Amino acid sequence: MGDDGDSGRYSVAFPRRWWYPTCRSSELTRRPRAVTLMDLPLVLFRDGGGRARALTDRCPHRNAPLSLGTVHTDGCLECAYHGWRFDGDGRCRAVPGRTTGDAAAPARDAPGHATREQDGFVWVWGDGAVPPAGDPFALPELTERGAGEVVFPCDLDCTLHAALENSLDVPHTAFLHRGLFRGGEPTEIVAVRDEVPGGVEVQYLGEPIGFGPVRRRPGSGLTFDHWDRFFLPSIAQIEYRVPGWLRIVNTILHLPLSPFRTRAWFVVRFWTRAPASVVRPVVLARGRQILRQDARILAAQNENVRRFGGERYASTELDLIGNAIWLLLRRAVQAERDGGPAATPGQAEEPALSHTSVTFTV
Amino acid sequence: MGDDGDSGRYSVAFPRRWWYPTCRSSELTRRPRAVTLMDLPLVLFRDGGGRARALTDRCPHRNAPLSLGTVHTDGCLECAYHGWRFDGDGRCRAVPGRTTGDAAAPARDAPGHATREQDGFVWVWGDGAVPPAGDPFALPELTERGAGEVVFPCDLDCTLHAALENSLDVPHTAFLHRGLFRGGEPTEIVAVRDEVPGGVEVQYLGEPIGFGPVRRRPGSGLTFDHWDRFFLPSIAQIEYRVPGWLRIVNTILHLPLSPFRTRAWFVVRFWTRAPASVVRPVVLARGRQILRQDARILAAQNENVRRFGGERYASTELDLIGNAIWLLLRRAVQAERDGGPAATPGQAEEPALSHTSVTFTV
Amino acid sequence: MGDDGDSGRYSVAFPRRWWYPTCRSSELTRRPRAVTLMDLPLVLFRDGGGRARALTDRCPHRNAPLSLGTVHTDGCLECAYHGWRFDGDGRCRAVPGRTTGDAAAPARDAPGHATREQDGFVWVWGDGAVPPAGDPFALPELTERGAGEVVFPCDLDCTLHAALENSLDVPHTAFLHRGLFRGGEPTEIVAVRDEVPGGVEVQYLGEPIGFGPVRRRPGSGLTFDHWDRFFLPSIAQIEYRVPGWLRIVNTILHLPLSPFRTRAWFVVRFWTRAPASVVRPVVLARGRQILRQDARILAAQNENVRRFGGERYASTELDLIGNAIWLLLRRAVQAERDGGPAATPGQAEEPALSHTSVTFTV
Repeated sequence: MGDDGDSGRYSVAFPRRWWYPTCRSSELTRRPRAVTLMDLPLVLFRDGGGRARALTDRCPHRNAPLSLGTVHTDGCLECAYHGWRFDGDGRCRAVPGRTTGDAAAPARDAPGHATREQDGFVWVWGDGAVPPAGDPFALPELTERGAGEVVFPCDLDCTLHAALENSLDVPHTAFLHRGLFRGGEPTEIVAVRDEVPGGVEVQYLGEPIGFGPVRRRPGSGLTFDHWDRFFLPSIAQIEYRVPGWLRIVNTILHLPLSPFRTRAWFVVRFWTRAPASVVRPVVLARGRQILRQDARILAAQNENVRRFGGERYASTELDLIGNAIWLLLRRAVQAERDGGPAATPGQAEEPALSHTSVTFTV
Repeated sequence: MGDDGDSGRYSVAFPRRWWYPTCRSSELTRRPRAVTLMDLPLVLFRDGGGRARALTDRCPHRNAPLSLGTVHTDGCLECAYHGWRFDGDGRCRAVPGRTTGDAAAPARDAPGHATREQDGFVWVWGDGAVPPAGDPFALPELTERGAGEVVFPCDLDCTLHAALENSLDVPHTAFLHRGLFRGGEPTEIVAVRDEVPGGVEVQYLGEPIGFGPVRRRPGSGLTFDHWDRFFLPSIAQIEYRVPGWLRIVNTILHLPLSPFRTRAWFVVRFWTRAPASVVRPVVLARGRQILRQDARILAAQNENVRRFGGERYASTELDLIGNAIWLLLRRAVQAERDGGPAATPGQAEEPALSHTSVTFTV
Repeated sequence: MGDDGDSGRYSVAFPRRWWYPTCRSSELTRRPRAVTLMDLPLVLFRDGGGRARALTDRCPHRNAPLSLGTVHTDGCLECAYHGWRFDGDGRCRAVPGRTTGDAAAPARDAPGHATREQDGFVWVWGDGAVPPAGDPFALPELTERGAGEVVFPCDLDCTLHAALENSLDVPHTAFLHRGLFRGGEPTEIVAVRDEVPGGVEVQYLGEPIGFGPVRRRPGSGLTFDHWDRFFLPSIAQIEYRVPGWLRIVNTILHLPLSPFRTRAWFVVRFWTRAPASVVRPVVLARGRQILRQDARILAAQNENVRRFGGERYASTELDLIGNAIWLLLRRAVQAERDGGPAATPGQAEEPALSHTSVTFTV
């Protein structure tokens, strides 16, 4: 991605040695669950101890998807075809019918991936061959009394990068979501971009308060505190604050199902002066409405890139977050290739993310 | 295409430096319209002056299809995603949100194609990189009092060449359209083929008058004047005349949407002794009936060629128009490759279209 | 297929110089019938003498599928597009409209395949370029008084090999078909595998009598005689006998429609002490129930192999029939490549099928 874009290129990057969200904890019950992580089929299940586990979704015996199986009373995952059983680490524990010999054998194991449950999500480590390091992204805690939460999922027909850029891009909101937010009287605001640990943050200064039907009053001097953030490998975060009045943090967890299909969970945590029970349905309705518009344009963008046989991007200084995300994703992939720790600015071949400030109107 | 046909070959040819019909003028209103020209996505729209324009259907910014956008009050096409605006030549005129700098920049332009409106159609020049030359094909004027017109479109699952050959092939009509026309008592007729400027014409001599349920009377001596014509790049024309009684010219304008999908407009202009209001519904009903049969066999032929992984054609002297069309298409493509004007017989490597006369029965 | 399996490999083999079932004799009436033999489109029809014939399903003239045509009163197959006619050997006999010259010409012929009708099926020789040798597989005759037959077809989304292995594999029945047959008290049985002319046979010794809801009584000493057999190129056969009480022979004829789609006809011939009219609906209902379960897991296995980009099989000594089938199929293909007769053990590079005996529980 960049101003010199060419056909035949796609902004697809998949840093493996990271935690990815794969489903909500509440969705993983006794029934095995299939999911793909950048086209790698995985089966999620809870073992005898109730612990979430992730194996490659293929029985080593005859390739049947293990996700069609069931969890045996011994806590093993049992294949539906011949009944082979695998423990949470993917080790073969039973080959029904055999009267001699050990069930366990390396060729009979289903490769596993490390898992972690945190913040109500099942996270899977992206690289089955490398032990996990660090923790999954931590969702922010809103400790204010009366804080609420809304979570809604959405599958998007687009790359991980396009989903991330879309969720953090401000200029498109005035057009695509005209009437829902922004798009009224143009106001000048300043965006300040800085690299932060594991990601990038843009702070917006001077945005007058207003949301949807509530008209902004540019002259009133009342402004939002507003930050957009990206954290590797797949987290977008939008935060609005008006001290004493409201705080909204929308954290969007992405799972790249395949190069051109991305699952997103919108985790909106909020606090306002109004009761959470009043705010929740408004956030949900408005969020879904905006999401429908985004999903439609992202699918159209994605399909267009594919029918042109590649992308061609022309950016301006307004595109300060999308290009930064792409650089960080690419840098993370490059660091894995080099085998060392994630490269830091100055060491990598990729240019560093400079402190940038842009004035634009919304 | 030819008697020595092989698998792995497809009769797909696309001469670019020609005018192609893309939609009817009446179909192009204030709403942008998507179309493909041999897989190249184009957006058609009317600019501030009401002039039909054609741009590559991809916003240079983030690849969204411009056809999802709208025409701004300034006559520019506005992208639905971030609101970038393009004039009729594809030049970028506005990047909303920017407070400094010119919107115009070569990397931000959407490549355009020349357009022309003529005979109620919007024609697009096939090569965006080369200025247009000459005029689109001119539809025949029927100046007789009481002349009428019927136009009906059809999307065919086949190559441009297969559609052209089908529409101008006489022998198949006695089988595929048995009962609709021809297929009664066999009569000998003579077909005479000659190259004409920009195409090829076959004249049929001795065909007894008769159409559908009206039985032909071979012995009566009454015959049609009948010509079939092909004009580069995509025009088929069938003309029947009985001096003093009727004249029907069916001009079929083809747009190759993709190698294996072709849009056709059947423009039937007619004059008979009966009032046009009586003739029109008969022409329309009969035309659509024949077209359904043709569309079905063309789709089956096309699918069969694809599942065999290529075509294999065995022709006889009866196939005097299909092979000529293929030769002219190939010659036109070759001429563009050579960079010179369209080759004329004798200069090209392709053999010239000889004057040919064939006797056959219908 | 084997213990050292890799991704990127598929157990697809197609020995050509064999007879394949293509449809039931009763299904081939006056209407031409399309079928594919490992992706080769064929048209089946009955010629003037009522003899079943098979031609490549493509008119040599313009590639229309001959299966859309009709059988002319002269017994030739007539193409629906231009009416070219072909006799049972595929020779062109008529080109309607031509007034001179012979219709027959090598380039105008539709290549034919040898056919044979036997046991109520139309068999087609797999190689159009090589004359047939030998006879199609002969279905077993049950001469006992009161014997009956049930035939039911099924299209399976899987390779020929996966279908064959599934139908002859015993261990999976206790899991996939739990409750329908097997899966009760585990009993030790012995399987003895031997190569037989044109195939391989496994005899099962010691299997206690019982079927579905009828509980097995391991201690009773009553056992089935049970054989599973595979015959090249595509025949599976399961035989159960209790002398004086019952005999059931389920012969499954397979047609590889394409690498990953296989048509199967289950021809169940049976004799029991009960009247055939009572047994038939039971066999049919039970058979279809089992088949639904098998079809589902086979499709899932197939899809999984494809999404992993290849298969990876880990076998144990229990997989004594599937691996043998794969070896025989591969050996048959190899023999055709070598141009000689089917290799016999000891001559081929493939290892011979050794006499093998395995004890396992069901």
